[in-house]
Amino acid sequence: MIETSSIQFETNGDGDVIDLTSRVVEIVKNSGITRGVVTVFIPGSTAGITTIEHEPGLLRDLPEFFEKIIPRGPTYHHDATWGDGNGFSHIRAALVGPSLSIPLSSGRMILGTWQQIVLLDFDNRPRSREVVIQIVGED
Amino acid sequence: MIETSSIQFETNGDGDVIDLTSRVVEIVKNSGITRGVVTVFIPGSTAGITTIEHEPGLLRDLPEFFEKIIPRGPTYHHDATWGDGNGFSHIRAALVGPSLSIPLSSGRMILGTWQQIVLLDFDNRPRSREVVIQIVGED
Amino acid sequence: MIETSSIQFETNGDGDVIDLTSRVVEIVKNSGITRGVVTVFIPGSTAGITTIEHEPGLLRDLPEFFEKIIPRGPTYHHDATWGDGNGFSHIRAALVGPSLSIPLSSGRMILGTWQQIVLLDFDNRPRSREVVIQIVGED
Repeated sequence: MIETSSIQFETNGDGDVIDLTSRVVEIVKNSGITRGVVTVFIPGSTAGITTIEHEPGLLRDLPEFFEKIIPRGPTYHHDATWGDGNGFSHIRAALVGPSLSIPLSSGRMILGTWQQIVLLDFDNRPRSREVVIQIVGED
Repeated sequence: MIETSSIQFETNGDGDVIDLTSRVVEIVKNSGITRGVVTVFIPGSTAGITTIEHEPGLLRDLPEFFEKIIPRGPTYHHDATWGDGNGFSHIRAALVGPSLSIPLSSGRMILGTWQQIVLLDFDNRPRSREVVIQIVGED
Repeated sequence: MIETSSIQFETNGDGDVIDLTSRVVEIVKNSGITRGVVTVFIPGSTAGITTIEHEPGLLRDLPEFFEKIIPRGPTYHHDATWGDGNGFSHIRAALVGPSLSIPLSSGRMILGTWQQIVLLDFDNRPRSREVVIQIVGED
């Protein structure tokens, strides 16, 4: 069985960390698939997918870390090409990566207790995002 | 065919790099699946999964690199929230990511000769870990 | 259905960013599989797989970023072990990771418009590379 769905939402850009967990859990439940692999993928080159504990402290720490190693600013060659000023967003996104694969067993994704599935929106402006959720498995 | 297993072990935390390769190879062999995709996933938010050449030099280089870009210390907002002093562990883990997907063909995972599957335990204390190995494929 | 193919090519090493997208699209098309998951994997420990907008500005920005956070040089323990001078390549590769999972639906990989599948070759010399493309799905 293969089920492909998507989650749509608005972000503030600018390092926004969006918790997708409950919506992915709902899609998995509605699919009727109980065993297999769940792929979470962001189409687009200025956001990434990973997991983190979604708590207020880390929601500040994570953007501060990216600002430290890949600061925003006019110093990227990308910005000279396009003038859209989001060269830093592309590099951050390439580093984190766009995909995540989560095992599904007995109808439940095997996540840690404090491990949430998140989109990191690195773009320099608010964005409409659509994250693809695909389940390959059996009922 | 879908086979879900796990590998349990103790770590020293603190940047420990654990080579999982031989145990994943054994699980793949016992599954009887010869073609498909092997997903390696760590439930938890203070460790990551990747590949590296597991040799003594890199086992020192890799922790030194993470200490340079995401130093341990009391300067993370996460630590103000929980007081557990492992904010740096969460950021390192989010950066590396918790999942890896390896193609399986003719009964063999297609890894490079010097490419080992590793868990990076970033927590600030020894931990009991359980890594999930899931194979989706055919015999 | 499971289809395993590979793409072979030469790189310049040294931070080379190779766009694999059109060759992966062709493999997917020839497989006859229209729904499922596409795994892109690099066997080897000195290169990584991710996505980025493959445009001239970012092709300079990305290597400059890696040079900043993981500079080449004789200061890695790995180089003391092997004397091959590519300790920095291994650390960059472990950070980016060797795998990527892309959902396939209605015969098309769900990528963003400016999102290309790339190999980052971090080795310190030209290399022959073989990237594995595996499709698990249905026609």
